[in-house]
Amino acid sequence: MWREEDNKLKKSFQFNNFSEAFAFMTQVAFLAEKMDHHPWWANVYNKVEVELTTHDAGNTITDKDKKLAQAIDKLLEKK
Amino acid sequence: MWREEDNKLKKSFQFNNFSEAFAFMTQVAFLAEKMDHHPWWANVYNKVEVELTTHDAGNTITDKDKKLAQAIDKLLEKK
Amino acid sequence: MWREEDNKLKKSFQFNNFSEAFAFMTQVAFLAEKMDHHPWWANVYNKVEVELTTHDAGNTITDKDKKLAQAIDKLLEKK
Amino acid sequence: MWREEDNKLKKSFQFNNFSEAFAFMTQVAFLAEKMDHHPWWANVYNKVEVELTTHDAGNTITDKDKKLAQAIDKLLEKK
Repeated sequence: MWREEDNKLKKSFQFNNFSEAFAFMTQVAFLAEKMDHHPWWANVYNKVEVELTTHDAGNTITDKDKKLAQAIDKLLEKK
Repeated sequence: MWREEDNKLKKSFQFNNFSEAFAFMTQVAFLAEKMDHHPWWANVYNKVEVELTTHDAGNTITDKDKKLAQAIDKLLEKK
Repeated sequence: MWREEDNKLKKSFQFNNFSEAFAFMTQVAFLAEKMDHHPWWANVYNKVEVELTTHDAGNTITDKDKKLAQAIDKLLEKK
Repeated sequence: MWREEDNKLKKSFQFNNFSEAFAFMTQVAFLAEKMDHHPWWANVYNKVEVELTTHDAGNTITDKDKKLAQAIDKLLEKK
């Protein structure tokens, strides 16, 4: 579940290991490049934290963030 | 199923799209780097062809190839 | 230099090691996803072969291929 | 320059764009998997923050961290 906090959409993801976490990051990176909308994200081993906000809209949550959030969730549904 | 052909272990993989295919390739790349044993592979869109042989053993199939083949298969079992 | 052969644009790239080759492939993958135009490519260790053709145009070379070829070359100029 | 702070080795990296930043992250990911020592890192667009510490040594800086820091720096020297 994405949570709204500090004008950001935030979600934490956990995988079996680093390899799976980074493969997920690679797929998110494709989405980000396609949409030209890039997340702030942090990773350590099997954990990935994603935070979405729209800098150009004064750091508020916009449709761009919601669309990227949905596309990220869809990556994991497929598997 | 890996098939033995021309002194190589060969296998074809198919995914839903390019993003999933390349995420798989990223995970195989981690294995290859860890084992210091690199595949020949080709990709177009959602398809990946992998061929394993051991150059240092005169281009024959060795335990290195079998170990990498098993590790690659394990990546897909997990999902 | 890209060469025209069998209705494809072809080019071979060589890097210092697998890590650099795969980092290049990751950048090419971003371009491919953005343009929704994907190469056939093969890699072994530090070598990458790229072949571009447009399937939807009866496997001929189109502007899409030329544009992707240029974008790929630009990746390497920067470094 | 890596700085020592809160028992961590920290460094900030900046690239021309997201594609270059993520290609760098892919190369760092290879190092991390090979050494079985994974960084905490964050990225937004062209910026990457890396923090290294050894969890198994009570979150102190060890030789593992110094070795990974050197290997990361080496990635950028080459280019």
